[in-house]
Amino acid sequence: MDSRQRAHFINGLSGFKSANLIGTADENGATNLAMFSSVTHLGADPALVGFIVRPDTVARHTLDNIKQQNRYTINQVHKSFWQAAHQTSARYDKEQCEFAMTGLTKEYVAGFNPPFVQQSRLKYGLSLIECLPIKHNGTILVIGEIEIVLIDPKAVKDDGFVDIEALDTVTVSGLDSYHDTNRLSRLSYAKPNLRVTKIPLNGASSRKL
Amino acid sequence: MDSRQRAHFINGLSGFKSANLIGTADENGATNLAMFSSVTHLGADPALVGFIVRPDTVARHTLDNIKQQNRYTINQVHKSFWQAAHQTSARYDKEQCEFAMTGLTKEYVAGFNPPFVQQSRLKYGLSLIECLPIKHNGTILVIGEIEIVLIDPKAVKDDGFVDIEALDTVTVSGLDSYHDTNRLSRLSYAKPNLRVTKIPLNGASSRKL
Repeated sequence: MDSRQRAHFINGLSGFKSANLIGTADENGATNLAMFSSVTHLGADPALVGFIVRPDTVARHTLDNIKQQNRYTINQVHKSFWQAAHQTSARYDKEQCEFAMTGLTKEYVAGFNPPFVQQSRLKYGLSLIECLPIKHNGTILVIGEIEIVLIDPKAVKDDGFVDIEALDTVTVSGLDSYHDTNRLSRLSYAKPNLRVTKIPLNGASSRKL
Repeated sequence: MDSRQRAHFINGLSGFKSANLIGTADENGATNLAMFSSVTHLGADPALVGFIVRPDTVARHTLDNIKQQNRYTINQVHKSFWQAAHQTSARYDKEQCEFAMTGLTKEYVAGFNPPFVQQSRLKYGLSLIECLPIKHNGTILVIGEIEIVLIDPKAVKDDGFVDIEALDTVTVSGLDSYHDTNRLSRLSYAKPNLRVTKIPLNGASSRKL
């Protein structure tokens, strides 16, 4: 395989990925927006989220801004703007803003510097905790703590479950394939001597366990 | 929110996740199989994959075995066994094997110690590279390098893209919700002055760019 084939192939092996736009600003208020498929839940308390950056790519603008300002936003990508989200991965110059280039709209929250994506129905602001170097390939795991969450309240169920499928959130496979989803079911909390069962979307029956 | 609600809520924020079973064995050949939704692509060359472990959970059996044997397998979860895969997350005792408890079948590759899941159509064997501590919450990023890949060859397209949707690979949201997918499209490689376009599954038109 040549290097491009290899990139496609290896990117497919980990399974489906999240689709998120990361919004940042520099010291002059110039904004940046970039697509990432590596945003990963790291823990609920404290609420930590990580993503992987290759410092030799266009994503370094995101990394530079986060290191400088210590804050950034993560915005889930939905079916209403998945193609504009992919367009942000083009190698725009530092002075070109991906919002203007792709037609996405900036939204600001008082007291929080970097921009959110107005079109996203599930987004949050983070403060930088740590940039953890992965020495074996020169990438960096950027770890942030969630400070504020902006979410369509209809998507949050009684037991805290977030119905991201109802928000039309998309998922990514490989480098460039986008998918929407159909729920098979939620499943009950697994116990050794009990077969797992399907539970309703609001999680009601799981609370009896 | 109480701690369980908080866990559901925060787990939903990062977006859709991968669904993978990690297979390990200890020094006596006793096998372990555990569900993870945090398997993440870290880089294509070298081919690195990471996942997150909380050492205070049942997943510590997986971590202990990996540290001891330096090898493990990652097996994508498909629609044919998603419920059995979820069942592996029950708190079985160390001497109870999740294969026997859930009806999944062990498959071995000559010269590679830990078990694969026979039912999985995309799986690979890894050697441990590094256990990277995330100090802020006591979790560990386990980084491995892919050594061997077992895959249904029909799923691999000319340009290296892997059609995991055709393999019926599932995706996870939150702690317990499973989904299958519908492709929206693959998209062309994004360039600054060109709007991204839909490309065929075999990637043919992306090669002209």
